[in-house]
Amino acid sequence: MSEAGTLSVIATRAGGPEVLALVRRELPSLKPGEMRVRVHAAGVNRPDAMQRAGNYPPPPGVTDVLGLELAGEVIETAADVTRFQPGDRVMALVAGGAYAEEAVVQADVCIPVPAGLSMIEAAGIPETYFTVWSNLFQRAGLKAGETVLLHGGTSGIGVTATLLARAVGARMITTCGSDDKCAASIALGASASINYRTQDFVAEGRALTEGRGPEVVVDMVGGSYMQRNLELVAEDGRIAQIAFQQGARADMDMGPLLFKRLTLSGSTLRARPIPMKAALTRAVEAEVIPLIMEKGARPAIDSVFDLTDVQSAHAHLEASAHTGKIILKTAACTEE
Amino acid sequence: MSEAGTLSVIATRAGGPEVLALVRRELPSLKPGEMRVRVHAAGVNRPDAMQRAGNYPPPPGVTDVLGLELAGEVIETAADVTRFQPGDRVMALVAGGAYAEEAVVQADVCIPVPAGLSMIEAAGIPETYFTVWSNLFQRAGLKAGETVLLHGGTSGIGVTATLLARAVGARMITTCGSDDKCAASIALGASASINYRTQDFVAEGRALTEGRGPEVVVDMVGGSYMQRNLELVAEDGRIAQIAFQQGARADMDMGPLLFKRLTLSGSTLRARPIPMKAALTRAVEAEVIPLIMEKGARPAIDSVFDLTDVQSAHAHLEASAHTGKIILKTAACTEE
Repeated sequence: MSEAGTLSVIATRAGGPEVLALVRRELPSLKPGEMRVRVHAAGVNRPDAMQRAGNYPPPPGVTDVLGLELAGEVIETAADVTRFQPGDRVMALVAGGAYAEEAVVQADVCIPVPAGLSMIEAAGIPETYFTVWSNLFQRAGLKAGETVLLHGGTSGIGVTATLLARAVGARMITTCGSDDKCAASIALGASASINYRTQDFVAEGRALTEGRGPEVVVDMVGGSYMQRNLELVAEDGRIAQIAFQQGARADMDMGPLLFKRLTLSGSTLRARPIPMKAALTRAVEAEVIPLIMEKGARPAIDSVFDLTDVQSAHAHLEASAHTGKIILKTAACTEE
Repeated sequence: MSEAGTLSVIATRAGGPEVLALVRRELPSLKPGEMRVRVHAAGVNRPDAMQRAGNYPPPPGVTDVLGLELAGEVIETAADVTRFQPGDRVMALVAGGAYAEEAVVQADVCIPVPAGLSMIEAAGIPETYFTVWSNLFQRAGLKAGETVLLHGGTSGIGVTATLLARAVGARMITTCGSDDKCAASIALGASASINYRTQDFVAEGRALTEGRGPEVVVDMVGGSYMQRNLELVAEDGRIAQIAFQQGARADMDMGPLLFKRLTLSGSTLRARPIPMKAALTRAVEAEVIPLIMEKGARPAIDSVFDLTDVQSAHAHLEASAHTGKIILKTAACTEE
């Protein structure tokens, strides 16, 4: 297929899943530090749907081919890349371009796929595991024995956070939008799950922590949740803001920041400079891969679609009935 | 004087400096961990004036005698106190009771007054040095080579932060309310000072940092400043909130928290549990006292009033024309 470029998914215009199209694109030649990878599988993430809908443009200089994470086999390395060589199985965080049969990746943000982990599982790791490790563990400092309350227990971030919190010995309370999702979240390892449509998460979160509140709150909602998170979190607590699905504006009373001695932190992965992503990659490789392989924190896979069926994969994502990762696999992938 | 109790300052009702009165109070007998100290000097702080005005009541169980910091000589120790003995010179952080000829202190929040430091200087250390060390260095992580912008350069916190930032090799930019105060702040060691009445601190703060913004912002204002701090601070920056002089409410756009990967923290000293204060005391003793004695960060003393002239001391505080600490000294103090 190389005479016609690499099969790749783009959004032909802003819109629903129907605007996704398979096109052939030539990959650029490798720059120092880069590798060309034959993609076996790519993870489908909420930001991909936001980008498709026109609400999350790729950073300057980044391909318009969708997809933020992949697993595959190294085909070619730039001359200065010493750690990997053709044939190596890697998983990678990318700023774009994962929904394709081949992709260019930075070697510094690749992790070897360990024996015993499938390409489909590996493709579901970088985006949420890097995000959760960075925000919940590195920045918000979640530790064994602490309690964390997370909004969106069955989201990609929510599932990964639940698996990793349990793996390190922390207690996870989630909020979800239905009793079915609450049950799914508990099945994944949450110790309790609050249906936010029928229960007040501040009152329930307090009741589940003997009135103290959880030491850590993880929020992707923003908006009116921000004040309620300040009310709920324990003294000396930490709030990790990962997204603003209801927007970043709110009429706030920041008083609890002071009198409860709180720390608020926020970050997104995509806009970080490569050296920061590389440092995070090394931390994930050293600290998170062992939790995945030995402590029961393997990624939960919801469903696998062929790359050519990407419209169905996005429709499934946006139906919001899934639990765990939605994965695209290419023709190169022989796994079920 | 013991037959009639200890000369002590209270507010007879909520009001201006004129409500301050000298009364005689019996000190309670010592509980485990406590010491009785002959006060030589006590620092005058903004929270004392807030308490006098009825806006900052002492925590439950705490004396209504004013004053949050003192230096003096140990007179008596509880049986379990082994580190100090009668005759030792100590400085102490207290939850109340420093404006008096004798006070009860927790041994765990005392630091020996080093040779070469006067009681008047020592009395001006605990409140602001503990607050600045905790918020600016421990929580906001200010490091050598970084730039910090602080609102209120000539306030007690501002002066101490300027001295300590310079002592560790960080660069301090302050804001002040007049050109005279800006000049005073620069004389104390600020590398630049912005008159917030005539200049936009966001634009000026950017211009002074090649457009990046300072790595750390320290704020005691709150209100509308909170959004402007989010706009100003550098990527990966930290904002330390120490007070809310304009209130804690604001219509906020928290977007920069995420896209600039910020950390916001806040704390007050007074409400902390004793074990936290004790840990902070040990950190200040180990890390801050050397900066004071060897790196030019001795407290800047604005003026010294007799304890009996406490009304004048409060009037001077509230005139807001001082730079550095206002100190009360008792009859036991023979220093000028």
